[in-house]
Amino acid sequence: MKPQSRILGVDDAPFRFSDEHVPVVGVVVRAPSYVEAVLTTRVHVDGTDATDNLADAIGRSRYREGLALILLDGAALGGFNVVDIDALSRTVRVPVATVTRDRPDLEAMERVLRRKFEDWEARLEVLRRKELITIDTPHKPLYATVAGLQPHELKEAIHKCTVRGALPEPLRIAHLVATAIVRGESKGKA
Amino acid sequence: MKPQSRILGVDDAPFRFSDEHVPVVGVVVRAPSYVEAVLTTRVHVDGTDATDNLADAIGRSRYREGLALILLDGAALGGFNVVDIDALSRTVRVPVATVTRDRPDLEAMERVLRRKFEDWEARLEVLRRKELITIDTPHKPLYATVAGLQPHELKEAIHKCTVRGALPEPLRIAHLVATAIVRGESKGKA
Repeated sequence: MKPQSRILGVDDAPFRFSDEHVPVVGVVVRAPSYVEAVLTTRVHVDGTDATDNLADAIGRSRYREGLALILLDGAALGGFNVVDIDALSRTVRVPVATVTRDRPDLEAMERVLRRKFEDWEARLEVLRRKELITIDTPHKPLYATVAGLQPHELKEAIHKCTVRGALPEPLRIAHLVATAIVRGESKGKA
Repeated sequence: MKPQSRILGVDDAPFRFSDEHVPVVGVVVRAPSYVEAVLTTRVHVDGTDATDNLADAIGRSRYREGLALILLDGAALGGFNVVDIDALSRTVRVPVATVTRDRPDLEAMERVLRRKFEDWEARLEVLRRKELITIDTPHKPLYATVAGLQPHELKEAIHKCTVRGALPEPLRIAHLVATAIVRGESKGKA
């Protein structure tokens, strides 16, 4: 990966489960930390449109061709609107990874999915399909899944766009913007 | 000014004159370029609430106390919703400056104000009150007005948070976010 590679970080805004939609923000950062572009879209809370809506928003973006990697804050947006990173990566032809601070608890997720959704098996299959990767940081580790890159390439890319703390800049800044859109001011950690 | 000083950049989103409100975005950057927070508010298009709404949003912010400077993209938000930077600076107790790429054309503004607003004299007085400062950059100069700082302090502060091009990072990033909120993707120059 080139030192000046562009990485898109994607996070959703805070929402209530009574909301129909949730805003989703993408920030294109040229590593390590230069903010090059911001994009927005939205997805249905607990819906099934996250993969397609991200593919559309990224596909329309004039930055798509220059992207080395797409980082998603977690495996789903707007609650349980699960992103199929294999499909997204194929469609936009850019590697895609999910990143979380907490180790995903697939058993807890399965319990919620079974209770809430008729299509719980399809959602769970997507969540379970990818191998979990642990990414060491100077702080607590990050947990990731990836489509289209080797784990060591993902680690290298994440380290190249991490400035302070554990979270890479594209995700950290996407979180600040997404929170401010809904709450008026960003606060706390992604 | 300390090298790690925090500077808030404020820009409005694109709008049509038929819109009632326009979103306004603030980005807190620790010089030279670390994005620390994002905040949002809104003002009436062509209204008279920009000064008060900014004062409220900044006054509520937990970042206000750490701010060394507030940079506004131009002398007005949402069309001709003029910001009284003397009043804003007094209220939030932080120096405030306006910055533009193009030299303000006060005569053209006066013609528009006279045509559109009964209170054109009050708006024009605010626009005229401050001395115009030219800020040299490696590119075209910037034009500024300032309340609460000496011109040489303003120049120093702007240079400390300018990374590429002429525009300081807080304004450049605020513009990217404000545009993306309305258009889905940021584009072009502030």
